Amino acid sequence: MSKVKVASFGMSIDGFSAGPGQSLEHPLGVGGPMLMQWVFPTRTFQQMHGQGGGETGVDDDFAARGFVNVGAWILGRNMFGPIRGPWPDGSWKGWWGDEPPYHVPVFVLTHHAREPIVMKGGTTFHFITDGIEAALTAAKQAAGGRDVRIGGGVHTVRQYLQAGLVDELHLALSPALLGQGEALLAGIDLTALGFTCTEHVPSSHAMHVVLSK
Amino acid sequence: MSKVKVASFGMSIDGFSAGPGQSLEHPLGVGGPMLMQWVFPTRTFQQMHGQGGGETGVDDDFAARGFVNVGAWILGRNMFGPIRGPWPDGSWKGWWGDEPPYHVPVFVLTHHAREPIVMKGGTTFHFITDGIEAALTAAKQAAGGRDVRIGGGVHTVRQYLQAGLVDELHLALSPALLGQGEALLAGIDLTALGFTCTEHVPSSHAMHVVLSK
Repeated sequence: MSKVKVASFGMSIDGFSAGPGQSLEHPLGVGGPMLMQWVFPTRTFQQMHGQGGGETGVDDDFAARGFVNVGAWILGRNMFGPIRGPWPDGSWKGWWGDEPPYHVPVFVLTHHAREPIVMKGGTTFHFITDGIEAALTAAKQAAGGRDVRIGGGVHTVRQYLQAGLVDELHLALSPALLGQGEALLAGIDLTALGFTCTEHVPSSHAMHVVLSK
Repeated sequence: MSKVKVASFGMSIDGFSAGPGQSLEHPLGVGGPMLMQWVFPTRTFQQMHGQGGGETGVDDDFAARGFVNVGAWILGRNMFGPIRGPWPDGSWKGWWGDEPPYHVPVFVLTHHAREPIVMKGGTTFHFITDGIEAALTAAKQAAGGRDVRIGGGVHTVRQYLQAGLVDELHLALSPALLGQGEALLAGIDLTALGFTCTEHVPSSHAMHVVLSK
């Protein structure tokens, strides 16, 4: 059965999944890359970014799993780019260059309408202005029975969690302190939403936990 | 040099170090024991509770380390017992029976004065009514150059952290969701307080992290 899932989401010891001060220079916020140290060396990440090699093992297994059977993605506006407010022009096409690592339709939540952007390699960015449920409906239709992955950022994941629309959440609990940033789970009662921790696997870089309904 | 430390403190995926509804039946709150699954099988825990055997390994190493060179403890009132308000009589002497596992002076924070209680095995409970700094001064004096361990509960640890009085914090990040409870780090900027993660060791039950100044 198709799922709505969040995967490979890093979280700091103090509960943040992004650092403060997101910008063009700091897409994950200041300190945010500390949450992703587990993924950078993996074969999945290295190959996605056009490098050869990369490590296999627990971290790579989880990184790879996040892409299995994904038929569409949903991203918040801030994960798509650093621009706020109306689109000044059509020049910003995401952080990922000409061939983004999605290879399926990607639905971007925004308050500002924009024509779809067809990228190389199968990724098309669609801009959705009528809310998270409309985006999910469109994504499920595009996914054609495969899973929908909520890519982030933090605010977007929180919205989908609070609306009870997420089936599975893979977090990589990272041995990093951020001090400030965007708290992923603060004020969200995952137990009341029906989640339990169904899997936990340590690596030398992180503790991977899977939360499922 | 002597340190003020917190050790073997469990924390859930969602950031809670105690469950809701603490009571005589649920000293760690409802669900709280899920945070301590890593410690129960250890040799340190088993021997402390008069059992033989127990497991060695990473979890036991951390459990044992928390007791090394500790000359005094500080506990919050709620960690000492479930009674709130004035002491009705002298009958409550802690959760731990005649011979508590401290074996050194223990300073209990309370608003209600009480005479010290001398227990078997070297533990004496002292009741401190003039605040966390007074308790720390007394504990350091009693420790005679050894470390002072802040035993808990959550509110007490938070007070000492916020006052900048803690040197080292060992957390066992546990693969459990509580949904509700007492958040350990919410609203506390450990980075601004000077902490970094200086050690992280996974076990099959938890990810151990040491935060130090």
